[in-house]
Amino acid sequence: MAISEFGLIQQFFTSQSLINAVNRLGVGDDCALISVPEGQELALTVDTMVEGVHFFSGTDPEQLGRKLLAVNLSDLASMGATPVSATLALTLPEVNETWLKSFSKGFLNLAREFSIDLIGGDTTKGPLTLSVQAMGIVPEGLALKRSTAKAGDLIFVTGLGLGDAGLGLKIEQGYSSVFSAEVLRKFHLPEPRVAEGIKIREYASSCIDLSDGIASDLAHILEQSAVGACLDWDKIPLSQAVKDYINATGDWGLPLSAGEDYELCFSVAPDKVDAIDIDCTQVGVIESKAGLRIKRLNIIEELEVKGFEHFS
Amino acid sequence: MAISEFGLIQQFFTSQSLINAVNRLGVGDDCALISVPEGQELALTVDTMVEGVHFFSGTDPEQLGRKLLAVNLSDLASMGATPVSATLALTLPEVNETWLKSFSKGFLNLAREFSIDLIGGDTTKGPLTLSVQAMGIVPEGLALKRSTAKAGDLIFVTGLGLGDAGLGLKIEQGYSSVFSAEVLRKFHLPEPRVAEGIKIREYASSCIDLSDGIASDLAHILEQSAVGACLDWDKIPLSQAVKDYINATGDWGLPLSAGEDYELCFSVAPDKVDAIDIDCTQVGVIESKAGLRIKRLNIIEELEVKGFEHFS
Repeated sequence: MAISEFGLIQQFFTSQSLINAVNRLGVGDDCALISVPEGQELALTVDTMVEGVHFFSGTDPEQLGRKLLAVNLSDLASMGATPVSATLALTLPEVNETWLKSFSKGFLNLAREFSIDLIGGDTTKGPLTLSVQAMGIVPEGLALKRSTAKAGDLIFVTGLGLGDAGLGLKIEQGYSSVFSAEVLRKFHLPEPRVAEGIKIREYASSCIDLSDGIASDLAHILEQSAVGACLDWDKIPLSQAVKDYINATGDWGLPLSAGEDYELCFSVAPDKVDAIDIDCTQVGVIESKAGLRIKRLNIIEELEVKGFEHFS
Repeated sequence: MAISEFGLIQQFFTSQSLINAVNRLGVGDDCALISVPEGQELALTVDTMVEGVHFFSGTDPEQLGRKLLAVNLSDLASMGATPVSATLALTLPEVNETWLKSFSKGFLNLAREFSIDLIGGDTTKGPLTLSVQAMGIVPEGLALKRSTAKAGDLIFVTGLGLGDAGLGLKIEQGYSSVFSAEVLRKFHLPEPRVAEGIKIREYASSCIDLSDGIASDLAHILEQSAVGACLDWDKIPLSQAVKDYINATGDWGLPLSAGEDYELCFSVAPDKVDAIDIDCTQVGVIESKAGLRIKRLNIIEELEVKGFEHFS
């Protein structure tokens, strides 16, 4: 059965009615309409995932749909924004109804969890490429930025284990002798730290989400804030699986350079640390001296930035 | 020279400073920020173009960059919105600096014409796929929709020639004996009818932009408004080139079914027709009887809807 483009979007992605009052018009017209409440700004982010680059061919479509939206919500979380809506640009080699049904289920289930409407999209024929733009709202002046960290601020991360997603990827690729269902789950089903972002916007001085590894992501804060930082290896939260992996391989850089943890990394001025009301771990300090360092085995060494870059 | 992802976006697409006051934060953080003025709604639309599907391999990148943004601005125009910003999700097989320089020139020149900032984006490696989301603002309640046409309303189109872009495509493909530099220009460099959309939102009862041909696009208005319509063939504006093409081929359906004219098609209630303050042509009437008809050679016949559908 041939399904028209309109049919595609409408059949799989359109819910009966809009669930978030901010959204005034959804799929079906030339544009969607959003009414941003007074005193709020609209935050928006776009992320694209390409088959064979960002995910393996044959990835479970339900997990893929969920993860595609989750990584965009993670960007909203890192600004302290409350997600309200998303659009989806879907480029597909063919109409596979089973795949679409499963993909849309994963996408829409997460959308519902956060009261987000899918308000627009475009379906085109071509190599499998998935692009989401997510929109959120944040009180004027409260959006967390990368450019506002100050020397002396303390650095925190959410979550209990950096590098879990990176180890999950290694397990998926068959490159790890350590197996852990939990880190595999973190790789396939990251949880965007939306609630945490909303809380910390009241007291954090800067924030970024960990998509490329803390060495690479924190470097963006340091560069844009014109500061440096020193991490404390002993404080980096590590899961037992990652500890086992490091013991087996000696690859202690994994939790610093592996991507896709989607935890928040944020800084807080010393006099605001008492306000912290989320689960997080202090892992370092912002310094005035440029560069990113790590204290490990009582030695302070420069950390080379090597996050994932597609074209380098 | 390998250029990092960040370098790509920053080198080619980031202007020094934001030019539209609505945009508060542009490229460089996890999200962009927009401050929507009180009493305005945000209109947003997304369109994707894939090499080999929407444009030929080898298309002049400057024209491509301009057209990619133009087709999104056309969607904003059809809602009566004033464009303010855009994001760009760029999937590229490789870094080709010459191509990128030319593509970004076309994109950004049109952006500047409309005081639009490129406020975000994502660059990924993969088959050439270009996805733009454009944002605009429109006074609350004034956005032009597809669902609000009423029987008795008159139907208008902007521009002087439907089917020009379609003939341009045929010329480009070598399928036309008629040649016209002007229709080729219309195919490659459509002009989004932004100023017209802003004017007609005061009096039009519905609107859509002609991306797939009037037979297909008007059908969306008819379906969503639960009405029908009759077009008058003698009133359809045709360029001399399209007239020559029809005379040579007998293919009179071209101006009705060929896509990419990006003119506006809108309806106006009879008592508001005097308010019309843009160049346009009345081409038909909204009727209560469902379906789309055309009066031609004194015969009224049903028009089959056959716009461009990727998967059908």
